[in-house]
Amino acid sequence: MTDDCDSVRAVPRNGDEVRLRLQEAALELYLERGYDKTTAADIAARAGVTERTFFRHFTDKREVFFDGEAELRDLLTGAVAAVPAGTRPLPALRAAFHQAVPLIERHLPVTERRAPVIAATPALQERSLAKTAGLVAALTDALRARGVAEPLAALCAQVGMDTYSAAIRRWAADRGDDLHTHLDRAFNDLRLAANALK
Amino acid sequence: MTDDCDSVRAVPRNGDEVRLRLQEAALELYLERGYDKTTAADIAARAGVTERTFFRHFTDKREVFFDGEAELRDLLTGAVAAVPAGTRPLPALRAAFHQAVPLIERHLPVTERRAPVIAATPALQERSLAKTAGLVAALTDALRARGVAEPLAALCAQVGMDTYSAAIRRWAADRGDDLHTHLDRAFNDLRLAANALK
Repeated sequence: MTDDCDSVRAVPRNGDEVRLRLQEAALELYLERGYDKTTAADIAARAGVTERTFFRHFTDKREVFFDGEAELRDLLTGAVAAVPAGTRPLPALRAAFHQAVPLIERHLPVTERRAPVIAATPALQERSLAKTAGLVAALTDALRARGVAEPLAALCAQVGMDTYSAAIRRWAADRGDDLHTHLDRAFNDLRLAANALK
Repeated sequence: MTDDCDSVRAVPRNGDEVRLRLQEAALELYLERGYDKTTAADIAARAGVTERTFFRHFTDKREVFFDGEAELRDLLTGAVAAVPAGTRPLPALRAAFHQAVPLIERHLPVTERRAPVIAATPALQERSLAKTAGLVAALTDALRARGVAEPLAALCAQVGMDTYSAAIRRWAADRGDDLHTHLDRAFNDLRLAANALK
């Protein structure tokens, strides 16, 4: 029984380990010689696997940096769906981002190592923006599923995501306060700034 | 005298004409055979110029679609700088976007022809997002120059841009109202949505 369970679990665990090794190899190579001078084959070789294995895990050498987005998306859309009925869109999104804090904190060490590489590489910056756009589309759908009308759902998802991104940036510049505090502060700034639109 | 003036003006006018021809050739080819199957050399050949001339005008075959952004950026940052002293950040941005309406309207025919190509081409979508991020950075600087403190300037520039983009999308779906009306409506939606964050 124990053996069976282990062998069943061994497949994904092994796949995850290869994935992590490819991600670590990519980060090392991008730091050592730059993104442009690194090929998928180089990353595979450094990780001790074939190029074919690389492409079984990632569609291209940008994607290696962004696979955590799927987990974040699922967590956020699940949290939006679970917010009490009658909660307005931006408060619902604020609550969802608060629920994502443990996930963000868990990924922080690797996020911090990747950040300078992304900042220095237009191709990775563009993919990062595309991933954020994907998150916004998923949050728009999640708000729509709560009965928020179309043009408002898209606006709120985008504005909510940008307020979250502002909180992440402020937290990176000031780790003295935790991400929960920065989230509340950024959403409060949004409220005050928008209040001047009368 | 007249001859001198004409010959001085002829250089940029001719350059602009080549630029427009390259942009039209790129649009035609992307529609005919797709972005991926079109090279810079193909675009140059269709426009009747050399590949070298292509690269004198554009850094790559994505950039052909996005050179209007520089004009929009200059107009918006100039408008933010010219808003009466004491105007709060989001109202200042709303005023700037209203001033950009004639430029947007003038570009509308080509924008509408490019839109389906961009929507169908991840590489162009990513460049489009990167261009918008560049606009946000320029607007952040423009707000900072008005004395808006740092974390608020970046948040407002991003949220203002989101609201403008929402207005553009709504206008594309409903040309019955003009862009000014859609801008006011989107900024009012933002105010009401943010008001629920108390």
